Amino acid sequence: MTTVNDSTANGADLTNEEIFAAHEGGKLAVGVTSQLATPRDLSIAYTPGVAQVSRAIASDVTLADRYTWTQQLVAVVSDGTAVLGLGDIGPRASLPVMEGKSALFKSFAGLNSIPLVLDTTDVDEIVETLVRLRPSFGAVNLEDIAAPRCFELERRLIEALDCPVMHDDQHGTAVVVLAALRNACKVIGRELSGLRVVISGAGAAGVACAKILHTAGVGEIVVLDSRGVIHSGRDGLTPIKRELLGFTNPRDVSGGIADALRGADVLVGVSAGQIPEELVATMAADSVVFALSNPDPEIHPDVAGRHAAVVATGRSDFPNQINNVLAFPGIFKGALDAGARKITDRMKVAAAEAIAAVAADDLAADYIVPSPLDPRVAPEVTAAVAEAAKEDGVA
Amino acid sequence: MTTVNDSTANGADLTNEEIFAAHEGGKLAVGVTSQLATPRDLSIAYTPGVAQVSRAIASDVTLADRYTWTQQLVAVVSDGTAVLGLGDIGPRASLPVMEGKSALFKSFAGLNSIPLVLDTTDVDEIVETLVRLRPSFGAVNLEDIAAPRCFELERRLIEALDCPVMHDDQHGTAVVVLAALRNACKVIGRELSGLRVVISGAGAAGVACAKILHTAGVGEIVVLDSRGVIHSGRDGLTPIKRELLGFTNPRDVSGGIADALRGADVLVGVSAGQIPEELVATMAADSVVFALSNPDPEIHPDVAGRHAAVVATGRSDFPNQINNVLAFPGIFKGALDAGARKITDRMKVAAAEAIAAVAADDLAADYIVPSPLDPRVAPEVTAAVAEAAKEDGVA
Repeated sequence: MTTVNDSTANGADLTNEEIFAAHEGGKLAVGVTSQLATPRDLSIAYTPGVAQVSRAIASDVTLADRYTWTQQLVAVVSDGTAVLGLGDIGPRASLPVMEGKSALFKSFAGLNSIPLVLDTTDVDEIVETLVRLRPSFGAVNLEDIAAPRCFELERRLIEALDCPVMHDDQHGTAVVVLAALRNACKVIGRELSGLRVVISGAGAAGVACAKILHTAGVGEIVVLDSRGVIHSGRDGLTPIKRELLGFTNPRDVSGGIADALRGADVLVGVSAGQIPEELVATMAADSVVFALSNPDPEIHPDVAGRHAAVVATGRSDFPNQINNVLAFPGIFKGALDAGARKITDRMKVAAAEAIAAVAADDLAADYIVPSPLDPRVAPEVTAAVAEAAKEDGVA
Repeated sequence: MTTVNDSTANGADLTNEEIFAAHEGGKLAVGVTSQLATPRDLSIAYTPGVAQVSRAIASDVTLADRYTWTQQLVAVVSDGTAVLGLGDIGPRASLPVMEGKSALFKSFAGLNSIPLVLDTTDVDEIVETLVRLRPSFGAVNLEDIAAPRCFELERRLIEALDCPVMHDDQHGTAVVVLAALRNACKVIGRELSGLRVVISGAGAAGVACAKILHTAGVGEIVVLDSRGVIHSGRDGLTPIKRELLGFTNPRDVSGGIADALRGADVLVGVSAGQIPEELVATMAADSVVFALSNPDPEIHPDVAGRHAAVVATGRSDFPNQINNVLAFPGIFKGALDAGARKITDRMKVAAAEAIAAVAADDLAADYIVPSPLDPRVAPEVTAAVAEAAKEDGVA
């Protein structure tokens, strides 16, 4: 039996045979909500009965939300350019991941979802395609689209579509990081406003983490990309990195990860790089390390734990798994239940607070976020997000 | 209780209340083929296990057919321009019909299917959109798209996509008409080659009926549009009507329906117009009348029956219901099972023969086609179409 090679096994003892067997024919199926077994069933669901429903929607287009499946349907959209850690493997190879995502939407939030993978990486063309398809779905989950294109694409789609749009690799991760950091603060007795946070990685997740932590009131944020700290003296910054400079690095630190980490309270690793133990040792007392690269964390959690008070990873085989399945099912369900036209910062922060609250009663250094399989999470996130949508006036 | 008004009730005693109740939240749901209940389930269907499957497809893109749902997934595509008898009611109002179609695909052929309704009626844009989405599905069922645009759109999509594409309003209807006519011939003791057939209506269904009946060897076909018989002296014919002249109306008849019907053996009505009894009375002895307009046949079947030996309609409350649900589930299932790149004429004729064969043992003037709910039909059509695809070398 062949086993998944160690670098991707994430601790699970899986064989290729069982993985491929589970994927035969795909992981999704479309079902009917009521049987078509008799002539009467056909007359209700198809002609002539269906004509009444079509006529009603033709007269009042908002009735499509009530009498079709679209209002609870998420399009999981990818161009296959940044799939897991595999990179630009194309739309067809991304499909098993998108089907998995749809399966998670169903399993955790009861939402219908269809993968739409696109044979184009052009932002204009992707926007145009989804605008044309707009009547077919109720929300768009962007997935595995490479940075920096993902930033422009998400912004353009939010403008172009009157429905919730979210790039999960950005905001799903950011929401769970905020939830985890809120609870880590409680464990170490600190406030977000007093923290110095270093984010290693300025891709989709790093940028979104910086934004949500700023929105949530974190005192100081310093972001690094592959060339080091993003500071005012850097040439050739992309638009999104210039935008980051507007609210990060207030002391205008320059240099590399060693310069950034010295005296910092929190490290959020979303970089796929490695961070040596001796640098983590230079952080402030009672530091917090989120080493989220998958499958290989920036630093092994046991090693980080020699210096940090709280350690989290993206892996299921260590405590404190920061997994965006805690966020996205409830965020979309809450947005759709509320009839929200967009997903606002307040809705994301509300999701983070709801996730943090589920773990609050049993808080410990090795329990700052609920398990990804905790059934309490999605309903709590759903309710909090729907409420925030109403408060923000987008529902 | 409000009932569906008589002109659409098609004989069924349906109330609006039950129709709308059955449509609450739509008629489709996406399900998962195996549960995601444990960390191990997640590791197989999502990360890290799914990465193995994505990697395999990245190396050999044909594996997407095996390890994703797309190879058994039909996109039901409409722009909402010719929905039932309701006309151009737009994509949102067409959705209940498309969901119904997807429900039929599932119920009759076990195929997965998703409605994709488009907020554009531009042929170039629809083609472009589906080309970009190509990796997301295995076949395209075009539905309720107005003529003559539907002809160009289908032709362009067949060229552009390496998968089965069929406009069901054309070919589904044509296949069942051919099946019914084959059996009607047996009932009246005639051969297709000796028949004079009049097709009243040159829209999607009329054109496709003319083509398939010609392919199947019908002796003479005369087609009428709203201006009368299509003949060589007509000005301003659309390209598709000029194409019809290449193989119809060999005697170059001109005039109206009265001129066409005199002495004809078969009337296929797909026009939504009315045909007076006295004209049907001028047809040849042992004539065949298919009055397929829905909900109001071109002539009431009881009235037609005073003159014709065999009468069929599109309605469920009279004998011989010509309903394209007899054709499209098995046609797409057969094409997908065979891995066909297109749907050929031979595959359509094979479908018609398979449908006719199911009714062959119990043939009678009031039983020339099986019931739309006959469970034998879809498997027989599937097998025949898959076989024909192999014979035609498109699989």
